[in-house]
Amino acid sequence: MIESREAVTRMIVAAKVRKGIKWSDVAAEIGQSKEWVTAACLGQMTFSKAQAEIAGRIFELPDEAVAWLQIAPYKGSLPTAVPTDPLIYRWYEVVNVYGSTIKELIHEEFGDGIMSAIDFSMDIQREEDPKGDRVKVVLSGKFLPYRTF
Amino acid sequence: MIESREAVTRMIVAAKVRKGIKWSDVAAEIGQSKEWVTAACLGQMTFSKAQAEIAGRIFELPDEAVAWLQIAPYKGSLPTAVPTDPLIYRWYEVVNVYGSTIKELIHEEFGDGIMSAIDFSMDIQREEDPKGDRVKVVLSGKFLPYRTF
Amino acid sequence: MIESREAVTRMIVAAKVRKGIKWSDVAAEIGQSKEWVTAACLGQMTFSKAQAEIAGRIFELPDEAVAWLQIAPYKGSLPTAVPTDPLIYRWYEVVNVYGSTIKELIHEEFGDGIMSAIDFSMDIQREEDPKGDRVKVVLSGKFLPYRTF
Amino acid sequence: MIESREAVTRMIVAAKVRKGIKWSDVAAEIGQSKEWVTAACLGQMTFSKAQAEIAGRIFELPDEAVAWLQIAPYKGSLPTAVPTDPLIYRWYEVVNVYGSTIKELIHEEFGDGIMSAIDFSMDIQREEDPKGDRVKVVLSGKFLPYRTF
Amino acid sequence: MIESREAVTRMIVAAKVRKGIKWSDVAAEIGQSKEWVTAACLGQMTFSKAQAEIAGRIFELPDEAVAWLQIAPYKGSLPTAVPTDPLIYRWYEVVNVYGSTIKELIHEEFGDGIMSAIDFSMDIQREEDPKGDRVKVVLSGKFLPYRTF
Amino acid sequence: MIESREAVTRMIVAAKVRKGIKWSDVAAEIGQSKEWVTAACLGQMTFSKAQAEIAGRIFELPDEAVAWLQIAPYKGSLPTAVPTDPLIYRWYEVVNVYGSTIKELIHEEFGDGIMSAIDFSMDIQREEDPKGDRVKVVLSGKFLPYRTF
Amino acid sequence: MIESREAVTRMIVAAKVRKGIKWSDVAAEIGQSKEWVTAACLGQMTFSKAQAEIAGRIFELPDEAVAWLQIAPYKGSLPTAVPTDPLIYRWYEVVNVYGSTIKELIHEEFGDGIMSAIDFSMDIQREEDPKGDRVKVVLSGKFLPYRTF
Amino acid sequence: MIESREAVTRMIVAAKVRKGIKWSDVAAEIGQSKEWVTAACLGQMTFSKAQAEIAGRIFELPDEAVAWLQIAPYKGSLPTAVPTDPLIYRWYEVVNVYGSTIKELIHEEFGDGIMSAIDFSMDIQREEDPKGDRVKVVLSGKFLPYRTF
Amino acid sequence: MIESREAVTRMIVAAKVRKGIKWSDVAAEIGQSKEWVTAACLGQMTFSKAQAEIAGRIFELPDEAVAWLQIAPYKGSLPTAVPTDPLIYRWYEVVNVYGSTIKELIHEEFGDGIMSAIDFSMDIQREEDPKGDRVKVVLSGKFLPYRTF
Amino acid sequence: MIESREAVTRMIVAAKVRKGIKWSDVAAEIGQSKEWVTAACLGQMTFSKAQAEIAGRIFELPDEAVAWLQIAPYKGSLPTAVPTDPLIYRWYEVVNVYGSTIKELIHEEFGDGIMSAIDFSMDIQREEDPKGDRVKVVLSGKFLPYRTF
Repeated sequence: MIESREAVTRMIVAAKVRKGIKWSDVAAEIGQSKEWVTAACLGQMTFSKAQAEIAGRIFELPDEAVAWLQIAPYKGSLPTAVPTDPLIYRWYEVVNVYGSTIKELIHEEFGDGIMSAIDFSMDIQREEDPKGDRVKVVLSGKFLPYRTF
Repeated sequence: MIESREAVTRMIVAAKVRKGIKWSDVAAEIGQSKEWVTAACLGQMTFSKAQAEIAGRIFELPDEAVAWLQIAPYKGSLPTAVPTDPLIYRWYEVVNVYGSTIKELIHEEFGDGIMSAIDFSMDIQREEDPKGDRVKVVLSGKFLPYRTF
Repeated sequence: MIESREAVTRMIVAAKVRKGIKWSDVAAEIGQSKEWVTAACLGQMTFSKAQAEIAGRIFELPDEAVAWLQIAPYKGSLPTAVPTDPLIYRWYEVVNVYGSTIKELIHEEFGDGIMSAIDFSMDIQREEDPKGDRVKVVLSGKFLPYRTF
Repeated sequence: MIESREAVTRMIVAAKVRKGIKWSDVAAEIGQSKEWVTAACLGQMTFSKAQAEIAGRIFELPDEAVAWLQIAPYKGSLPTAVPTDPLIYRWYEVVNVYGSTIKELIHEEFGDGIMSAIDFSMDIQREEDPKGDRVKVVLSGKFLPYRTF
Repeated sequence: MIESREAVTRMIVAAKVRKGIKWSDVAAEIGQSKEWVTAACLGQMTFSKAQAEIAGRIFELPDEAVAWLQIAPYKGSLPTAVPTDPLIYRWYEVVNVYGSTIKELIHEEFGDGIMSAIDFSMDIQREEDPKGDRVKVVLSGKFLPYRTF
Repeated sequence: MIESREAVTRMIVAAKVRKGIKWSDVAAEIGQSKEWVTAACLGQMTFSKAQAEIAGRIFELPDEAVAWLQIAPYKGSLPTAVPTDPLIYRWYEVVNVYGSTIKELIHEEFGDGIMSAIDFSMDIQREEDPKGDRVKVVLSGKFLPYRTF
Repeated sequence: MIESREAVTRMIVAAKVRKGIKWSDVAAEIGQSKEWVTAACLGQMTFSKAQAEIAGRIFELPDEAVAWLQIAPYKGSLPTAVPTDPLIYRWYEVVNVYGSTIKELIHEEFGDGIMSAIDFSMDIQREEDPKGDRVKVVLSGKFLPYRTF
Repeated sequence: MIESREAVTRMIVAAKVRKGIKWSDVAAEIGQSKEWVTAACLGQMTFSKAQAEIAGRIFELPDEAVAWLQIAPYKGSLPTAVPTDPLIYRWYEVVNVYGSTIKELIHEEFGDGIMSAIDFSMDIQREEDPKGDRVKVVLSGKFLPYRTF
Repeated sequence: MIESREAVTRMIVAAKVRKGIKWSDVAAEIGQSKEWVTAACLGQMTFSKAQAEIAGRIFELPDEAVAWLQIAPYKGSLPTAVPTDPLIYRWYEVVNVYGSTIKELIHEEFGDGIMSAIDFSMDIQREEDPKGDRVKVVLSGKFLPYRTF
Repeated sequence: MIESREAVTRMIVAAKVRKGIKWSDVAAEIGQSKEWVTAACLGQMTFSKAQAEIAGRIFELPDEAVAWLQIAPYKGSLPTAVPTDPLIYRWYEVVNVYGSTIKELIHEEFGDGIMSAIDFSMDIQREEDPKGDRVKVVLSGKFLPYRTF
């Protein structure tokens, strides 16, 4: 009996390490971006039936695990409120240091509201630079204004 | 006596509201991006002497406040570890939901290391879209590999 | 110098107690629901210029406070992550006890996504009942599906 | 030996995924609302003997699990004080942003007291809307006044 | 300008110390139990107009403070989630050590539901005992069963 | 090997559910109050040898578990500092709302000191009431004055 | 108006620094141990009228402050749950590292119960030692057995 | 495979309960104080090879466990930052209530520095008293002055 | 199936204890500093294929574990935000007590920026001293200035 | 009236900004290292009378402030348990990532014990490097072995 989506995530990660699979290859087979597919494999998104079956084949998952992949998961991928891993912490630091700036500038441009984290996409790329290559990340989220009522 | 940079930030924010100043206009006068200038005005970055004097003129700050703007501040712009403001929370949510994905993909492309939050820039723009305009944010940070020793 | 929106909220609340003003009367003058107007007066929403001027007149606020009311505020109205006030705690308890239920049923009906807290409205009414009157609250939030990308 | 109600909840959830059961169908068989039945299946409410036996049949539970379903459980369905799942977080955000508003308006209408979370019901429905369907939730809780003594 | 009920509580406590007033005498004048009156003076309950005026006279409060006493306060009288004061901590310890026992026995007698903290009263008395006097506290709260729906 | 008292508590609770045992019957056999016996069965008190053997017979425990029941346990029966279960939370709320009141009144009657949670007893009873039965709880704790030294 | 005992503590500490007073001299005048008197001056114990007047004379306190010293204070002298000051942290560390040992040995000697922190005294002395002087602390607390009921 | 010192601690505690061993007898065999030996058995101190072998014989531990006893452990014996067990909590309370007093008196006697928790010993004894026996604890720690540099 | 790098770390630590291996010997075989190799063995750094195979041979790890050693791990080696172990706590204390000093002096020398914890090395040595040997630690991190943008 | 050492720290920091003083110059006048002097000025160390008077002259402090500088302060220079400032966070990250490594290597070299944070010194220097200058920090702390007793 598989008791949770986390158990499926652990199966996927273990299979990935054991078999030396790359996320970008999984993404190519599933036909979505590497960002969305990785998030889905790590238990944050819901696969369609077809997508789940491809993932099941790649990671050699049992049928019950494939069923779990089609269920909307309890999201949140970090073990602590403030992440300890340095790579992920730097993102938390950006939110902490620049959070008030982001808020001010979005409000200045759009008025009161938010940038959606649901109607949202992300693209991570290498940016070549002679002083050392850079990670370039493009985030795009629909602006949602507060409605009066 | 001005006891802290936070006191200067409060003066700037109060002057901005009272006088109806826009961050983008401040940025144009100071000659840096609106993102950096706003962060600096909100107490997260250090102004040069020339920049501090321009800011002092715009926000009608006393000399002591202009001196504070040139001192490296204790950074962190949020009152709680998990932000309560919905706009800023959405960013925290992105780190929480996509954090493990970002980590996996940067490691897949670059190996072990981090995306710098110091040698870093950010650009926030409106992306027009018939289904509702979007907020587009481009982040660029130098990749720093772990060194062995 | 008024340093923050919280200072304006304190002025409004003190004036309301001192003068015996009712939220529903403020709402009628401003021309929005009592729920939205109360939230805005308590520092959670942004007033238009016309609305702010009405509020300023009702609560006898200085011009600088009226300017603050038109600025998108840092939201969050509770002093602790788990609220201590019994009335508000009961709502937190509903989220705690029924949270997983709400999640399951929205996903069963709509698929993976969220109920917006931005494109959102709330209506609080007395429901007469011979066994003791009830508080009836209707919440309505747009369903936002996760997009694949 | 089944050591806790949580173990029974995990059995139910795993059976639901494995067999593709819908909460609304379970509710129809048990003869209560889908909201109450889902909460009960997720370990938040107490089944009667007859209800527990129906649930046991649907989810193919052993007798010991059926006995556990009739015991008042230790309630609380979220793993952290501030929920990380975006759908559930939006509800927490409503409590955080509108909590003081809800408090003010209930007190204005009813005086000092609370809206019960025990003598309470909830109804979740789809509200069709050309601009995008909405989730409509009706909450009804008895008003309980503080008694003097 | 009095900005909050806490400010009124501080005025009351300071006047009590300065003038050597006893809570039981305040209670006798107001005509409620010493338990309820003390809680109300400490900012946890709402006074009627008549009661507030008596309190105002005893503690020599300004009119604005008397108005605040008639407003339902944000409740919670402890500065930290786990109280540091030894007397109050012992009560927290009782909840911690005997909490599961209380839950089991109320459920065994009444079924699933709660003991109300709103329709609730408390009586604190000295119980003479040759081995050392005891504090006897009688708590009485209405049992509220969970309703199915 | 039984590694902890918690393991014995889980055995007792599982046996109670499986066999449909009532706490009051266990108390009658052991010859102490239902409050003390339930607390002891839930891992908060230490049984004598004779008491442990009766409990072992009722719950069909192995000898090693009977030994554990005679060892002073690490006490504390709640999984979080602020309890999530509504019944237990109401007690925490009483401490939070009335804590400062309890403190004031005990000090007014007895001087500085505490009400013991060790030389302590508790009695939980049904109080019949036409408006709905009530839970009556009598707490009795020795007053312990601070000594000067 | 003096609003709290903490305000009196701050007055005492400021006077002590300004006038170069020693705690042991205060203790000698008041006629109790230096440990108890220091705790009382720091807001943790209640002075008798005579003692408060001596303290008031030494620290040149106004009458209202002398009244506050005779009121049982809200105890707890540390700003955070885990103390940051190294001297005090070492004591917290002793509780953390040796806590389970202390528990085991007191139970082995006395059975289940506690060492009172109320019927308690403390004596801090210099212990001369050629390898470096030592701090010797003697704690004495009455053993309080749990009573069955 | 034994994965951690905690696993060895659980083996020791289980054997102690099962076999009815006393800490003072273990101490006598190992030839150190009961305080040190209990701390070491509970995973807080490092045994020498000879001491570990004696402990291994007493508690019937496998060779791998005896090896673990000779490794410096990750220390800290409490499951939460604020201990829930009443006996241990009283010690935490002493630190909380008397912490600032201890700090003041050690500084008054010794100057700035700390009382070591490493070059430290503890002795726990029964102190007979007609009003009820007392627990007497003597702590002795080397004073370590801050050095200037 | 090995589900995580932590599982591999536990295997390595258990093998080290069981076989009596020294970190410095592992470092010599792998050909990096003892500091880097220990961090890598404890799950904080990524091994190359050749390094992982040497580690696998020394600690007798299965192939799947050797694969895990080559994957960038989720970093963070402490079980709590404030470490309880005294040796590690002393480092946290240094950050707490001297953190603002370190910040001031690095800014005075270098301007605004940070000392990298990624382009970083550490060297731990014994420093002989007649008054007691000392631990000497040399940390070296690249200075990274904030860039304006 | 100056109520605390923190007030003196704020005076010093404000004077430093206002007058453009450098820490290294203060250190030269006081005759200790820049590391110790900065820590002392920031409220973490105790000045001698002579040192305090020099500091008082440099920062133009009143006599009462000079008296405060000679009192052992309550130490801890960070506003939150996990620091938000990026420069200081990197140090916390070193403790988090390398903490277990530091522990293992000090124990391997010295046995069980700690590196003192009291008998401790620190030296911060610029290390020139063609690939970008580095911050070199040398920490030296006496090793303190646990004593058996």
